[in-house]
Formats: sequence, structure tokens, C-alpha cells
Amino acid sequence: MSSKKTITMEHGAGGQFMQELIGGMILKNITQRSAGTVGLDDLDDGSTISLPEELEDGAELVMTTDSHVVDPLFFPGGDIGKLAVCGTVNDLTVMGARPLALTCAIILPEGFELSVFEDIMKSMNLAAEEAGVAIITGDTKTIQGNKLDSMVINTTGVGIAPKVIRDNGLSAGDTIIVTGNLGDHGIALLSHREGFDFETKLVSDVSPVNDLLKGPLSLRTEDNQPVITAMKDPTRGGLASSINEMAQKSGVGIVLEESDIPVDMAVNTACEMLGLNPLEIANEGKAVIGVRPEYAEEVLELLRSHKYGANARIVGKAVSENTGKVLLRTSIGSLRQLGMPVGDPIPRVC
Amino acid sequence: MSSKKTITMEHGAGGQFMQELIGGMILKNITQRSAGTVGLDDLDDGSTISLPEELEDGAELVMTTDSHVVDPLFFPGGDIGKLAVCGTVNDLTVMGARPLALTCAIILPEGFELSVFEDIMKSMNLAAEEAGVAIITGDTKTIQGNKLDSMVINTTGVGIAPKVIRDNGLSAGDTIIVTGNLGDHGIALLSHREGFDFETKLVSDVSPVNDLLKGPLSLRTEDNQPVITAMKDPTRGGLASSINEMAQKSGVGIVLEESDIPVDMAVNTACEMLGLNPLEIANEGKAVIGVRPEYAEEVLELLRSHKYGANARIVGKAVSENTGKVLLRTSIGSLRQLGMPVGDPIPRVC
Repeated sequence: MSSKKTITMEHGAGGQFMQELIGGMILKNITQRSAGTVGLDDLDDGSTISLPEELEDGAELVMTTDSHVVDPLFFPGGDIGKLAVCGTVNDLTVMGARPLALTCAIILPEGFELSVFEDIMKSMNLAAEEAGVAIITGDTKTIQGNKLDSMVINTTGVGIAPKVIRDNGLSAGDTIIVTGNLGDHGIALLSHREGFDFETKLVSDVSPVNDLLKGPLSLRTEDNQPVITAMKDPTRGGLASSINEMAQKSGVGIVLEESDIPVDMAVNTACEMLGLNPLEIANEGKAVIGVRPEYAEEVLELLRSHKYGANARIVGKAVSENTGKVLLRTSIGSLRQLGMPVGDPIPRVC
Repeated sequence: MSSKKTITMEHGAGGQFMQELIGGMILKNITQRSAGTVGLDDLDDGSTISLPEELEDGAELVMTTDSHVVDPLFFPGGDIGKLAVCGTVNDLTVMGARPLALTCAIILPEGFELSVFEDIMKSMNLAAEEAGVAIITGDTKTIQGNKLDSMVINTTGVGIAPKVIRDNGLSAGDTIIVTGNLGDHGIALLSHREGFDFETKLVSDVSPVNDLLKGPLSLRTEDNQPVITAMKDPTRGGLASSINEMAQKSGVGIVLEESDIPVDMAVNTACEMLGLNPLEIANEGKAVIGVRPEYAEEVLELLRSHKYGANARIVGKAVSENTGKVLLRTSIGSLRQLGMPVGDPIPRVC
């Protein structure tokens, strides 16, 4: 018999046990708990968000949700808690929004170790502190231990966007930028899960990109339009999925220079051994950006001056031909199509 | 071998299968899909909410989240889809907010029948239509069939409250009202799950209470304060949990008249047979309301004129003695304490 303290069904019952779990494990470990007059501490039916006093004309709220079922919960470079916060902060950011508040809804299987739960809460908190976003309300449910294998976290976020950035805003001529090396998250997770040993240590890129993108998002053209025309978060399906969606929705073609796409050598090696395409692998701290060409160098410079953007690269451009298609130009000059991935080579990455 | 179409891991992979699932099962069945310039149809990284043009001074956004793990998925009077929409709409409502938009994040086990999934989407839609709220963005994940027993839905909502209603706003003298019969949801679910046969058909009360509470929430005192001083959604832990929290947080005592608390006879009989207290049983279409005493009759009348409020009753009042405690006055005039429930007699009710 183990002496470790674990989750029981009563922890999800809405009574005293749940109150103790919330007080001892959640409130204690989250530092930013309020974004209005009612916050996490109030344990009310919900919490409030004060609206910014001055709102630009046309400003909108942005809302996004993600349930995280990553397996295993801890992986090189992160864990489900950090992933849950970053995933939602990043979705808000690529829509042009400044994150205002997050919710956190947790489902725990009976028998889950409380100390592991607390480690995950601490990690969520570090990520939320870095992103400067409050976790204002939540929910805790339990499921019988034989009916769910591990912890699940849903994070939903609300942000405010002075100008909403879409994934359909590319025009022919726009420059395509990626903010850093691709494929790190998925390959680090897979290698760790399957026990592969690739000599070089692979680490997930999971991180909040709101600070990285703050500068580029604030740039405006002379007629006060964002210089970023489209942006996306290349998670499941990787760059291949994101860039195909951007091409299809924008009604443009895209030509990417294969040799300009930044991929870490260890990720490339691993992908070659496993028969995977690094451009189809999930990232958790990157953005794919369309920029008006005359501002591309300025955006690139801003990105590169940030610790999360050191490997940012211009990787291609939108064109008026081959509408809805993405073509890769190889180093010898030939073109081949980068298709939308059908499935995902790596399940439960996020 | 079954010929039924079921969920595969690829449906959660971010590629073409997931797109088909979203298009064929979700978009097709949800009628209100937008609350701003970017909606569910856009399948972007999130969606937007337009802010109301005129905002009362002191208005705040309200945000609430719930993950639903109800077992079984279908029960008399409802299902997980209806429950997910109503649970979140009701949490917004009891905070004084008008629901603006919901998110819907779904986790499906491999092997889950697509036709059942579609039935649940249709039910979510009916509830969202009734509540007049759009489902604007979502997320779909899959888990291996041996690692999760059934579907899980997280709904997170954003609303706007001209004046936020808290659960800590009771003053001595305030009247306590419940909007209808208590315990229906938990007992209907339990009876169905365990195969109990109580002659009378028990049906869950799951329903959106935003329209029911619209009138009472709009009432103002002469100095423009809400006549509702505190409100709560008596879900897990039932009235016992909600009213104890209201007493503790408000720093008042509460005396409830036992014979005035509306409980359906079938629920009472079932509770007696099972050794349960109907006041500790979950409700999914009710509110516990504190009202300034001079407005209690007006609020009661408004509630009773609505189909969901026909059994609304004044059940007691807040007092200055016995701070933080709830006392039940029995029909013979003796007082006994109604404690905060420790656990929950019925797991996975919501």
C-alpha cells in the first residue's frame, strides 16, 4: 500500500474535500488570480474581467479554448501545465489579442498523486507569470481511476485585440516568416515517450509568444493598418497544416524556400530515422506570420532581438499563382507540393 | 464487427479527418456560430466577441468554465450536451451576466459512435438556441479507447454584467428564494444509472435560467442598486452547499423554513429509500436568490410567471445571529443545522 496522498472521488464532489484541494493545491500556487472585481480567491460561480478604459474603435474580444491530453504529463522542456497556459496564450496572440484572463478546468483520475498535481500547478503558474496573464476561475472534476488514464486540463482564454489578425489575410507578395526552429515539441515528446536516444538532447519549445510578438503586432502602416496580415500557431499538423490553411483561406499560393526553413539538426536526424516530416510536427512556441513585404526586415529584426525569436527566418512568400497550394522550392530549384497532413504521426502531443 | 462509424485517433490529429469531423458533425448542427467578426465557421485559432456599444459604468465581463463528465451521457430530461450549455449559461446568469458566447472543447475516446456524437451536438444546439447564446469556437481531442471511458465536454462562457451579482452579498433581513423544486437532476440521473424504479418518472431539471432571471435581475432599487443581493447555482452539493457558502461569505446566519422548501414527492420518496438528503442533491436549472425583503414578492411573482419558475418559493431569510451557519426550522418549530456537505452521495452528475 502506498502512503502517497492521492485524489479520491470526493475531491470532485463540490464539498469540503474539493474546497481543501482548491485551497491547498490551486489558490496557494497561482500568483495572478484576478483580472476584475471577482477573482479566483472568491470561488464564486465565475469571475470577472474589467474592460480596458480606452478601447480603440473596432477593438474586439478574442476567445479561444483548448483541452490538453498530452501523454506523458512531463516531457523535456515542459509539462501539461506549462503547455496548457502557453497553448491558450499563443492562440490569443496569433489573433492579435493581448491576453486578459484564463480559466483552468481540471479533470483528475482517482488515485492521481497530489504532489504531482501540485508540481503541475506550480508550472502553470510560472508560465502564467511569464505571460503576464491571470488565471481567474476554474473547475475540478474527478473520474474513476479505471475510466481515465491521466490528468486533463482545459484552458480557455479571453484577450482584447485592437485589430484582430486572421489566418485568411494574406495577399500575393506578402512575406512569410517563421519565428524559430520547427518540430522541437513533437519530436522531443515522442523521443521521450518512446525512449528513443538521439544523443543530442531534444527539448520542447513550449513557451508563451505574446511578448515575442508584441513589437511586430504594434507596427502599423501609414494608413494605420497592422503590418502583420495573417498569423497562425503551428501546433498539431505543424507548419504544413498552418500554412496550407493560410493559403486556402486567403486564396493565394505560397512558395517556401526549403533551405530557409529553420529545423534543428537533431530534429532533422530524428525525423529521417523515423520517416517523419519535420514540417508536419507540432510546435508549442512558434508563429507563422504573413507580413507586408516592405516591413518584413523590420519584423524579422524585432523577432531576432527576442530570446524566443533568435532563429526567426523569412521562409517564403505568397503568390497569385497556384491558389490554395503550398510549394516548396528545393535547393536545386525544383518545386514540390507541401500538402495538408491527413492524420498526425504523433498522437497526444498537446 | 460493427459497421457503425466511430471515432479514430486521427479525428483528433489536426488534419483532414478532424476537419471532416468538425464540418460534418459540429458546424452543420450549431445554428448560432458567431458573436463578432470571427466565428465558429472561420476555424481560426479562436473567435471574436464584439463589445456592446453602450456599456453601463462599472459593467464587467464575467467568465466561467465547467468540464462535464456526467455518466451516463443520456439521462431522463437531458444529456451531456444540454447540460454543458445550461451549466455555463446558468453560472453566468447567477453572476448577473447576460451570456455573450460559449466555447466548446470536446474529448472523445477512440471507438465513440459518430451518430451519438451528432445527437449530442444537436442537443447542445437546442439548448444554445433556447438560451440565445452563440457557440463561437472549440477544440476536439481524441484519447485511446482504453484510456477514457466516455465523452467529456468543457464549456466556457463569457457574459456581460451591468452589475455583477456575488454570492457574498447577503445582509441580515434579506429574503431567500429558490426558483423551483430541488434535487430533480441528481435523483433522476442516479435512478436512471442504477436502474431504480420509483413508479413516478423522475426527470432532470436541466435548463437555462437566463430568461427566467432576466426580469428579477433588471429590477433596481430607488438608488439604482440590484434588488437581488446574492445568487448561486445549486449544482454539486445542492442547496446545502450553495446556501452555506452564501452564509459564510456574506457573514450572516440563515434560517430556512423546512416545510417551505419545494421538493417533488417522488424525489422525497427516492431520497428516503436511499438515505439521501434532497437538499444535498445537484440541480441544473435552479437558482438560490437573496433579495431585499421589500422586493421579495415582486421577484417571486416574476419568477412564478415563467415556465421554469412555477414552483418558486420564499424559503427563509438571512439573520444577524449564527453567522456563517444555516438553520432549518422544522414544522414543529425546532431548529437544526444544515451543514456543508462533506462529499457527494452521487458522483459524476455533471
